[in-house]
Amino acid sequence: MLKLYSFLPSGNCYKIRLLLTQLSIPFERVEVNIINGESRTPEFLTKNPNGRIPVLETESGQFLAESNAIIFYLSEGTQFLPQDRFLRAQVLQWLFFEQYSHEPFIATSRFWISYLGKAEEYKDAIEQKRAPGYAALTVMEDHLQQHRFFVGEQYTIADIGLFAYTHVAHEGNFDLTRFPAIQAWIKRVESQPLHITIEQT
Amino acid sequence: MLKLYSFLPSGNCYKIRLLLTQLSIPFERVEVNIINGESRTPEFLTKNPNGRIPVLETESGQFLAESNAIIFYLSEGTQFLPQDRFLRAQVLQWLFFEQYSHEPFIATSRFWISYLGKAEEYKDAIEQKRAPGYAALTVMEDHLQQHRFFVGEQYTIADIGLFAYTHVAHEGNFDLTRFPAIQAWIKRVESQPLHITIEQT
Repeated sequence: MLKLYSFLPSGNCYKIRLLLTQLSIPFERVEVNIINGESRTPEFLTKNPNGRIPVLETESGQFLAESNAIIFYLSEGTQFLPQDRFLRAQVLQWLFFEQYSHEPFIATSRFWISYLGKAEEYKDAIEQKRAPGYAALTVMEDHLQQHRFFVGEQYTIADIGLFAYTHVAHEGNFDLTRFPAIQAWIKRVESQPLHITIEQT
Repeated sequence: MLKLYSFLPSGNCYKIRLLLTQLSIPFERVEVNIINGESRTPEFLTKNPNGRIPVLETESGQFLAESNAIIFYLSEGTQFLPQDRFLRAQVLQWLFFEQYSHEPFIATSRFWISYLGKAEEYKDAIEQKRAPGYAALTVMEDHLQQHRFFVGEQYTIADIGLFAYTHVAHEGNFDLTRFPAIQAWIKRVESQPLHITIEQT
């Protein structure tokens, strides 16, 4: 059985739980508390030398890190990744956008504010993340004003990758009411078969 | 013919020029000077709403952004991307590592110090990027102490993606002499057939 090393509040880990559930693939979840440094122990570093979760362990005992690499791997050959070569590249374009232009601002703000409860301590850092975070949401809003989903007008891992931290962006004090197309897309994603919430395991 | 919207000093653009050259695929290069805001004009935003280079324009006039999505797209079905599904996922793992844990620290330092020549003005920001930049180089060093290349013991786009900013890391004041395995790997990458330098077009 697949094994997922995961930290429940992490959107990066949620992406994989959501996809595995929608693929009806059973998996074992191993909780790794990153607050206690559990992803930096010598033992965990043998699984991912970069010391981060999530990590997927295959049935043959191989390890794969980076959430978006993992969902690409799991979705190959399924309805969640287009067969067409250019559409597949567009999926990757949005997944790289997510990790470079979205996650470092929106996910990090949420972590400081809603998970650590240290909005005051991280005030300046959070302030620096407002403009780039809103810029990413604006890119998404503009795209979703003309498209139902991110790639090929169908629900793919591009949507899963972007949904994970966008639908909880308000927990990082980003105001989603400014973005009606994103809100409608969130509802479309949540209405997909076998959807689970970020709290569900 | 393929068209590449590119800014010459950018390592992200260099990845694509290097791969296209090694694939012997002719392309037209369109220079976009990001310093003058040329990637943020209304006209350029129709190509990439995220306002960044590189952007690839296909022969049918479609646009693709994000350097690592572009090299994945161009390398599918070639010797530069493994056929094996898990190896392909490992390539993506390293490409996401590059964009999340490497480029934001090493490329940005180089840009401020060697391109803008503003080491003094950006002193505090550069200082903040030392530890995560060296952490990324250490992850690479540890891997390369046991492997000739990043994935499958052969030269792939994982190497191209990581080479782009690593081999010029000293231009961001990162000391590569501490990393002998990285230095040996740089020589191996540079000795590949049809290699071009970052200055070559």
